[in-house]
Amino acid sequence: MLSLADLQRRIASGELSTDAALAQTQHAIAAQDKTIGAFVRHDDKARAQTAGPLRGIAVGIKDIIDTAGFPTEMGAAIYRGHQPRADAPVVMALKQAGATIIGKTTTTAFAANDPTPTLNPRNHSHTPGGSSSGSAAAVAAGMIPLALGTQTGGSVIRPASFCGVPAIKPSYRLLPTVGVKCFSWTLDTVGLFGAGVRDVALGLAAMTRRPDLVVPSAVAAPRIGVVTQAFAGAPDPSGAEALQTAARVAERAGATVRELAMPEIVAEAWRIHPVVQEFEAHQSFAWEYGQNYDAMPPLLRGRLDESKGGTPAEYDAAMAVTLRARQALAAVLAEVDVLLTLSAPGAAPAGLASTGDPRYNRLWTLMGVPCVNVPTLVAAGGLPVGVTVIAGFGDDAKALAAASFVEDALAK
Amino acid sequence: MLSLADLQRRIASGELSTDAALAQTQHAIAAQDKTIGAFVRHDDKARAQTAGPLRGIAVGIKDIIDTAGFPTEMGAAIYRGHQPRADAPVVMALKQAGATIIGKTTTTAFAANDPTPTLNPRNHSHTPGGSSSGSAAAVAAGMIPLALGTQTGGSVIRPASFCGVPAIKPSYRLLPTVGVKCFSWTLDTVGLFGAGVRDVALGLAAMTRRPDLVVPSAVAAPRIGVVTQAFAGAPDPSGAEALQTAARVAERAGATVRELAMPEIVAEAWRIHPVVQEFEAHQSFAWEYGQNYDAMPPLLRGRLDESKGGTPAEYDAAMAVTLRARQALAAVLAEVDVLLTLSAPGAAPAGLASTGDPRYNRLWTLMGVPCVNVPTLVAAGGLPVGVTVIAGFGDDAKALAAASFVEDALAK
Repeated sequence: MLSLADLQRRIASGELSTDAALAQTQHAIAAQDKTIGAFVRHDDKARAQTAGPLRGIAVGIKDIIDTAGFPTEMGAAIYRGHQPRADAPVVMALKQAGATIIGKTTTTAFAANDPTPTLNPRNHSHTPGGSSSGSAAAVAAGMIPLALGTQTGGSVIRPASFCGVPAIKPSYRLLPTVGVKCFSWTLDTVGLFGAGVRDVALGLAAMTRRPDLVVPSAVAAPRIGVVTQAFAGAPDPSGAEALQTAARVAERAGATVRELAMPEIVAEAWRIHPVVQEFEAHQSFAWEYGQNYDAMPPLLRGRLDESKGGTPAEYDAAMAVTLRARQALAAVLAEVDVLLTLSAPGAAPAGLASTGDPRYNRLWTLMGVPCVNVPTLVAAGGLPVGVTVIAGFGDDAKALAAASFVEDALAK
Repeated sequence: MLSLADLQRRIASGELSTDAALAQTQHAIAAQDKTIGAFVRHDDKARAQTAGPLRGIAVGIKDIIDTAGFPTEMGAAIYRGHQPRADAPVVMALKQAGATIIGKTTTTAFAANDPTPTLNPRNHSHTPGGSSSGSAAAVAAGMIPLALGTQTGGSVIRPASFCGVPAIKPSYRLLPTVGVKCFSWTLDTVGLFGAGVRDVALGLAAMTRRPDLVVPSAVAAPRIGVVTQAFAGAPDPSGAEALQTAARVAERAGATVRELAMPEIVAEAWRIHPVVQEFEAHQSFAWEYGQNYDAMPPLLRGRLDESKGGTPAEYDAAMAVTLRARQALAAVLAEVDVLLTLSAPGAAPAGLASTGDPRYNRLWTLMGVPCVNVPTLVAAGGLPVGVTVIAGFGDDAKALAAASFVEDALAK
């Protein structure tokens, strides 16, 4: 994979020109994307900027995020050829930090369930996960050092786990979702994929002008609470093994590790996540579903058909549960630095018909807390499995530092 | 003015056809809008729907809200001719309730300060207020029974006060802002203008499928806390008189009325509202300001120039104040049913150069609480002055019922 930190260092020292850095990305895309299919389109004439912390860094943008320089087609027939007038604020944040927008990455239709033809770079007969399929795959295949995705259920952390790349779903609204196709305004969160946890942190720090997000060279051993999410069902053996492995190596490296039970209200929040998501989706997709029913992607359409009966009262009750669960989770997080949990039930499922199951991700999206995927082990078939490091709302720096600690411990 | 409740009643009884109801609106627009200039464009061939609670009701949509059937130009040269692909969810909610989208109403450029040429229907040499200038003016002039606006500082309540129309800025996110040009995602709120408080409530109830928002025929006398907002400076004599008048007649009608002091943290929230707004605006308008500087509306551009130095640390501190102030306000609101405060410093200023001052509105936008403007008196020059009735977050039904109580008391 292409390390952002490494590229930054070499560009800063003069060892690598920004043009050469970009050319490296262009060659990788030319060599690999015919097979992987991570890009909807890319600009093979894109040039590097000459200033900014991300100069020479090529970034892929999930195709539900508005770009003035490329169509934004949402992975959906309804938006074929759709050309936004403006760049979304997250795209402008990248440009203003010096990055080059190299292209648009594949997304499941409207970031829901209908899959893309993108292959998992680790094993071409498996899904890369979704909905940020192209962003995870492009970074995993070493085509680009940084990519943006979005998560409403598990659409950043799950593909990151399946493709074996670090990624962050930051605290809710640390990055604005303005100009990003809305699924659920309470849940939608823009996230980043990179070659390492430190790379992801550098990208996020540059985009937000928050240098405190950069992972320090020495990270103190964190107090870790392990959460098995039994309320979400049992994981596959490879998922369970990843969680045990990460906990064990972190402890060996000096972390304090103990298992934590979640309060019942938090389990209840896990259960009502779909109520929030679907009630808001019916409004977000009102035009598409109401006026373009036949052209709707079939899996998303079916999901909306099923959840048609959702009422304001059910939604209000779910939002009340959400608020109480966030408070309860904050209390739990006062006792440890971070939580450690599953990124997915296990390795990526075979085939491309399903992008996998977000059941271990959705609670944390609803809680709005920062989640970092750390690739942990490689299961049969060369398929990676990750774990998630979680901190309290707004403690993105803590989540990144602890994830980097776990990543370093695993590398030893 | 055209009363939605009255139209609904006559349509339901068969006394008025939906086509005739729409024709009434078309005639009023043809007769008046050449002078008032409330519409950017309108569809003079628009037809009524035959079903839904809002059948026969013509609605004007502020031109920062996406419509598939009309361009959406944001009152700004940068978006001239811009045609969104989809209707915003609030537009779809109106259509699904049976309403007819009759046209797009004027907005100050990007819903900021640069004024429109719209005249105040009550006195043509005064501003109708902004930023939802056209929506307030079109309802005030009796052209349409319902209009949508948006508020980030005081852009619904202020023009409603200046034009003498009831309006609601609902609880934050009761109506989604998806497909609405973003100024500040923490603040932006979609609101409604109508001929009476009950009309506004009927419109909001139909859009949200929340029948509990409809004002009951008999409203219990509320406990009212009067808030002078001394932290925002002294009002004009007409503003002060409106607040005293509304409090006095409400008390005479049976309400319990007492003056309430706001906790210091709430005054502090009033002070930091601009920090939140401008920090987010720099991201929301990053593309316009960064890549179309010369074409930016001059007043908004100047405001962004001045607030360029805002830092993430200042923003985080402001958001922390916001959270504490919301909690403190909720505690205050446990002691009364609603608050009563100023909608504006006084009557609409002369001329069209300024849309007036949102200083008595912005705190409540930041608090996310429902605000209802009730026209209270008519000052010199035939210029109306309103007051604002405020309830706790999510208590929109209570705000509407109490506002209706005050409105009825004033009518006696």
